[in-house]
Amino acid sequence: MFADLRRILIGAPLPSARMAHERLSKVRALAVFSSDALSSVAYATEEMLLVLVLAGTGALGLSLPIAVVIAGLLVIVAASYYQTIHGYPSGGGAYIVAHDNLGVWPGLTAAAALLTDYVLTVAVSATAGIAAITSAFPALLPYRVELCLLAILLIAWANLRGVRESGTLFAIPTYGFVLIFLALIAVGLVRLATGTLNSVDAQVVATAESGAQALTLFLILRAFASGCTALTGVEAISNGIPAFRPPEARNAGKTLVAMVVLLATMFLGISVLARVLGVAPLEHETVVSQIGRQVFGTGPLYLALQAATALILVLAANTSFAGFPWLSAILARDRYLPRQLTNRGDRLVFANGIALLAILSSALVVVFGGQTHRLIPLYAVGVFLSFTLSQAGMVRHWYKLRGQNWPWKAAVNGLGALATGVVLLVIVATKFVHGAWVVLLLIPIFVWMFHTIRRHYHAVAEQLSLEGLQPETWTGLATRKRSKVVVAVSGMHRGTLVALRFARSLSKDVTAVVVDVDPEVTTRLVDKWPAWGQKIPLEVLESPYRSTLEPILAYLDEVDRFEPERGLAIVVLPEFVPARRWHHLLHNQTARLIKQALLYRREHSDKDRVIIDVPYHLRR
Amino acid sequence: MFADLRRILIGAPLPSARMAHERLSKVRALAVFSSDALSSVAYATEEMLLVLVLAGTGALGLSLPIAVVIAGLLVIVAASYYQTIHGYPSGGGAYIVAHDNLGVWPGLTAAAALLTDYVLTVAVSATAGIAAITSAFPALLPYRVELCLLAILLIAWANLRGVRESGTLFAIPTYGFVLIFLALIAVGLVRLATGTLNSVDAQVVATAESGAQALTLFLILRAFASGCTALTGVEAISNGIPAFRPPEARNAGKTLVAMVVLLATMFLGISVLARVLGVAPLEHETVVSQIGRQVFGTGPLYLALQAATALILVLAANTSFAGFPWLSAILARDRYLPRQLTNRGDRLVFANGIALLAILSSALVVVFGGQTHRLIPLYAVGVFLSFTLSQAGMVRHWYKLRGQNWPWKAAVNGLGALATGVVLLVIVATKFVHGAWVVLLLIPIFVWMFHTIRRHYHAVAEQLSLEGLQPETWTGLATRKRSKVVVAVSGMHRGTLVALRFARSLSKDVTAVVVDVDPEVTTRLVDKWPAWGQKIPLEVLESPYRSTLEPILAYLDEVDRFEPERGLAIVVLPEFVPARRWHHLLHNQTARLIKQALLYRREHSDKDRVIIDVPYHLRR
Repeated sequence: MFADLRRILIGAPLPSARMAHERLSKVRALAVFSSDALSSVAYATEEMLLVLVLAGTGALGLSLPIAVVIAGLLVIVAASYYQTIHGYPSGGGAYIVAHDNLGVWPGLTAAAALLTDYVLTVAVSATAGIAAITSAFPALLPYRVELCLLAILLIAWANLRGVRESGTLFAIPTYGFVLIFLALIAVGLVRLATGTLNSVDAQVVATAESGAQALTLFLILRAFASGCTALTGVEAISNGIPAFRPPEARNAGKTLVAMVVLLATMFLGISVLARVLGVAPLEHETVVSQIGRQVFGTGPLYLALQAATALILVLAANTSFAGFPWLSAILARDRYLPRQLTNRGDRLVFANGIALLAILSSALVVVFGGQTHRLIPLYAVGVFLSFTLSQAGMVRHWYKLRGQNWPWKAAVNGLGALATGVVLLVIVATKFVHGAWVVLLLIPIFVWMFHTIRRHYHAVAEQLSLEGLQPETWTGLATRKRSKVVVAVSGMHRGTLVALRFARSLSKDVTAVVVDVDPEVTTRLVDKWPAWGQKIPLEVLESPYRSTLEPILAYLDEVDRFEPERGLAIVVLPEFVPARRWHHLLHNQTARLIKQALLYRREHSDKDRVIIDVPYHLRR
Repeated sequence: MFADLRRILIGAPLPSARMAHERLSKVRALAVFSSDALSSVAYATEEMLLVLVLAGTGALGLSLPIAVVIAGLLVIVAASYYQTIHGYPSGGGAYIVAHDNLGVWPGLTAAAALLTDYVLTVAVSATAGIAAITSAFPALLPYRVELCLLAILLIAWANLRGVRESGTLFAIPTYGFVLIFLALIAVGLVRLATGTLNSVDAQVVATAESGAQALTLFLILRAFASGCTALTGVEAISNGIPAFRPPEARNAGKTLVAMVVLLATMFLGISVLARVLGVAPLEHETVVSQIGRQVFGTGPLYLALQAATALILVLAANTSFAGFPWLSAILARDRYLPRQLTNRGDRLVFANGIALLAILSSALVVVFGGQTHRLIPLYAVGVFLSFTLSQAGMVRHWYKLRGQNWPWKAAVNGLGALATGVVLLVIVATKFVHGAWVVLLLIPIFVWMFHTIRRHYHAVAEQLSLEGLQPETWTGLATRKRSKVVVAVSGMHRGTLVALRFARSLSKDVTAVVVDVDPEVTTRLVDKWPAWGQKIPLEVLESPYRSTLEPILAYLDEVDRFEPERGLAIVVLPEFVPARRWHHLLHNQTARLIKQALLYRREHSDKDRVIIDVPYHLRR
C-alpha cells in the first residue's frame, strides 16, 4: 500500500541507464542557470530601502549611488567567475576550487557556507515569491507562512519526481520575467520623460522605526550590505559548465556576460524607478509591486509582472533544489556527510538531499514568520564567504599553473577576492546583531560535523580493512564445529521444533534454555521435553526479577567465561512471526529484544556471537 | 544510563518471592476499600444542584427528596452486594459474576463497563480533588488541567513504585475525611438549631443557563441521575474479599454495612446542609467548600476540610490504579487483552496497566478541560451497567445453586438488578446527549476488541499446537544439510571474511551475492574475490533501479522456484555493528532492512528461511 502511494506520488522508478546528460544551448542555459541571480532584483532594491528608511524618507535618495557601487561590484565578481569558468571547465564550485587550491579546511568552510546558502535561497525565494502574490492579493497576507510551506513542498515534490533542468521548461518564465521587467523599466522611463508618470502618493511608511536612526556611515554600509543580495546566484553558471554544448567553457563565459548585463540593467533600472517615483518600502506591498502599479496601472500587465516575479522566484528556489543535493552527494562521496546522501532515488535524483533541504528551509520559513527582510541578514554571509574563498583559490590556482598571462589572471581574481572579502566584512559588521551571527555560528559547527563524520568513516575503514592480512594464512574466527549452540525457547510448539532440529544439525554441543518467568508455563515445557526435546539438554534459568532477557544474556556471558577456548557462540532464536502487523502488539517480542541486545547493547555486543533466527510464519 | 534513571524513579527491582499477601482488619479494610465510595459525597450533591439550577434557584429545594431516594437506592444496592460477598467469597467482580452466570458476552460487557469506569474514576476524582484545592486557592484555577495531570502522574508513579494497599497509609486520610465531614454536619446542625448559622448570601449563580429551563420530570430525573454518582465505588469491597482476615466473607459483609451507613449519613447530611443554607452551585467554588466556609468560617477547620477532601479524592483515584491493572491482567490472562498486561514490573505491579490507565485518564482530563461536571454524564453509565449485570448474574447464581433460602436471596439481588437497571435507563435517557453516548459507543467497541484479540490468540495457539504430531515420526522442516546458503555481501572486509567462513562451514552449497549498485564498488569486490572468496562462487546481481534490497529478495525467490525440492534456504548476513548509537545514522543499514523484509514483508516472509546474522563489532 505504501509502495503504491509512493508510485503515485513520485512516479515509477527509472532505471539507472536512463541517466541523461542533456546539453544546453546558450539561450536555454541562460534560462536554467540565471533564475537565481535575476530573481534577486525582485527584492534587492527593497532591502536597501528598508535600511535607509530607518534614517527617514529623506535618506532614500542614497539608494541610487549605492546601487551603482553594487553594479560595479557585480562586474568585478563576474570577471572573476569568467576566469573560474576557463580555469575549471569541468565545473568549479566554491567547494572544489577552495579544496583543490587552499586545502581541506577552507574547502569545508566553503562547503558549509554554500549549504547554508542553498537553504537560505529556498527560504528567501519562497518568501519573496509569496510576497509578490500577497502584494497583488492582500487578503492572502495572513497565510503567508502556510503559502511558503506549500510552495516549498510543491518544489520538493517536483524535484523528487525528477524535474529535468529542461531548458524549455525554464525558458518561458525566465525570459517572460526578463521581458516584463525590461518593459516595466522602458515604459517607466518613457512615461517619465513624457511627464505622464506621477510619483507614488506620499504613503505612510509601514516600518515603525522610520526615521528613528541617524544617517550614519554604518547605516549606509548596512544598506549596501542588504543590496548585495543582488549578487546571489552569479556563481551558478560556473558550477554547471558540463551542461553546456561544446566548447563548454566559451559558451558558458558568453552566457555569464549576457546574464550580468541583464542583471545590472534590471537592478539599476528598478533602483532608478524606485527613486524617481519616491517609493518607500511598505509592510504589505513590495517595491516592485508599487512601481508596477504606478507604471502599468492595476490591469493585466501589472498582474503579469507579479505573476512573473512569483514564478521566477519559485525557479530560483528550484535552483537550490538542484545544487544542495548535488553538493551534499559530493561531500558524502568524500565522506564528509552520511553516505545515504549519495543514494539516487527512484527517479535518479538525490532524494535524501531534496528531503533534507525541504525540511531545513521550511523550518527557517516558520522561524522567521515568512518575512523576507528578516531572513536577508543571514543570507548574503554564506554567499560572500564562498565567493571570497573561491576567488582566493583561483589566485592560488593561476599561481600554481603559471600559464599564459598568469599574473593578469591572478590579479583579476585577486581583485575579486579582495572586493568580495571586504563586502563580507561589511556584511558581517553591519548585520551581525540582526542575524548574521547565526550563520557565523553555524558554519564552524558544520565544518566540525564534516570532520567528525569523516573521522568516523575513516575509523570504520581501518577496522574493516584487509590490509596486512594474508588470504592463505588467515584463520579469523573459529568455525561452527567448535561452537556452542544455545537455543532460547519459551514453550514447546511447532516453531520450537524447527529451531531445535536446525540447532542440532549445527553442532553436537547444543543446549536449550528456558527462562522461568511463569512456573506454570515452565512446568508444561519441562513435561513435554523428554518426548519433543530431540535429546537436547534443557536448562531452566531462574529469573527472580521476572525478566526474560537478562537471564539469557547472563547465561551467555557465563558460557563465555567458562569456555574461553571455544570460538564463537551461536544463539538460535525460534521466532513465530504474526501474519499481520497489528498482531505484533499482542506478543511479547522477546526474540526481537534478545537480538537487539546481542547486536547493539555494548556490554553484551562485545563478544563474537552469531545470531540465528528461525522464523515460523503464522498464516492468519 | 536509562537503567539508572529507572532505578532512581521506580526503585530497585523486587524478586518475585517478595509477593506478599497482607490481610486487613475490618477497620483498615474500610479505609482501603471505601475511599472511592465515600469520596463521591464530595461532588454528588453538587452535581444534583447543577442540574436543578437549570430550572432556577427555586428548583434547588427538590434536591432533598431526590437525595432521600438515592439513599434508598444505596441500601438496595448494598443489600445486593452483601449477598454477592457471601456468594463469591473469593472475590466477585462484575466481570467474574457476569461471565460465570450469564455467559461470555455479558461478562465482556461488564468488563468493558468496568474498565471505562476505572478510567473515569481517575479523571473525576482528580478533577474533583483539584477543585477542592482551587476552591480554597482561587488563584490556581487557571492551572487546573495541569494540576490534574500532575496529580495523575504522581499517583501513577507511586503505583509504579508499588504502593502496598497498606491499611495504615489509607486509614489516616480516610478516617480524617469521615471525621471532618461528620463534624461539619454535626456543627452545622447544632448551629442551625441554636440559630447561629446564616444562609449563604444570595450569590450570583455562575451557571449562565440558570433558570433557562422549565422544571420538567425529565430534569428531575436528570438531577437524580447525576446524584447517583454517590453510589460509585460501593462494589469495591466485594472485589477485595480475599484481603480480609478470616472469616473473610463475614468480615467483608460487616465492613460493607459500616461503609454504607457512613456514606448515607454523609450524603444526606451534606444535602440537608446545602438546602438549609441555600447553597447554589458556583463555577469557582464547590458546594462543600461553601458549606464549610459558612459552618467553620475560613479558619484552620475549613482548610482541613478542603485538604481532607482533596486527599480522599486522590485515594479514590488510587483505588482505580489498583483495580484497572488487576482487571486488565485477568482479561489478558483470559486472552481478551494483550498478554503484556499480565507482566509484573520491577516492583511486582502490573506496570503496563498502570501506564495505560494514566495515559487514558490524562487524555480525558485534557479533553474535558479538567471540569468535573462535564465528566459526570459519562461516569455513572459504566457503574450502573456493571451493577445491573452483576446483580442479574447473582440471581442466576442463586437459581443454579438452589441452596438454603435461595428464592429470598434471588429476590434481593433481583430487586437490586431491577433498581440499578431502571436507574441505568434513566441515566442513559437523561444524559445521552450530554456525553453518555460516548460510553455507549465505547463499550461495544471494547467488547469487539476483546473478541478480536481472543480470536487472534486462539488462531496462534492452533497454528503452533503440537496436537496430532507424533514425536517419533515428526520430520518437519529439512535440516541444514539439504539447504542452500546465500551470503549477501556488500564489499570485501573483515566482517565478510568471518561470514563467508561461517557459511562455508554450514553447507557445501554456498553462493555469495552482491548487488551491483555502484559499479566501482562491485569491480573492487570482484577483483579481490579470487584471493579472499574462500572458493565460494560469487554472483553479481543487476540492480537497474539502484535498490539493494529488491534484487536479493528476487534472487531468493528464484532459488525457491528452481529448487523446490530443497528444504529451507539459509541467508547469511555479515553486519558490521558501529560502536556508538549515532554512527548508525551514517550507514545504510542494509543488513537490517534485509532481515526486516525477510521476516515481516508478507510477500517474502511466506517461505521457510533461516536468517543468520554474523555481526562484526567495531570498537570505535
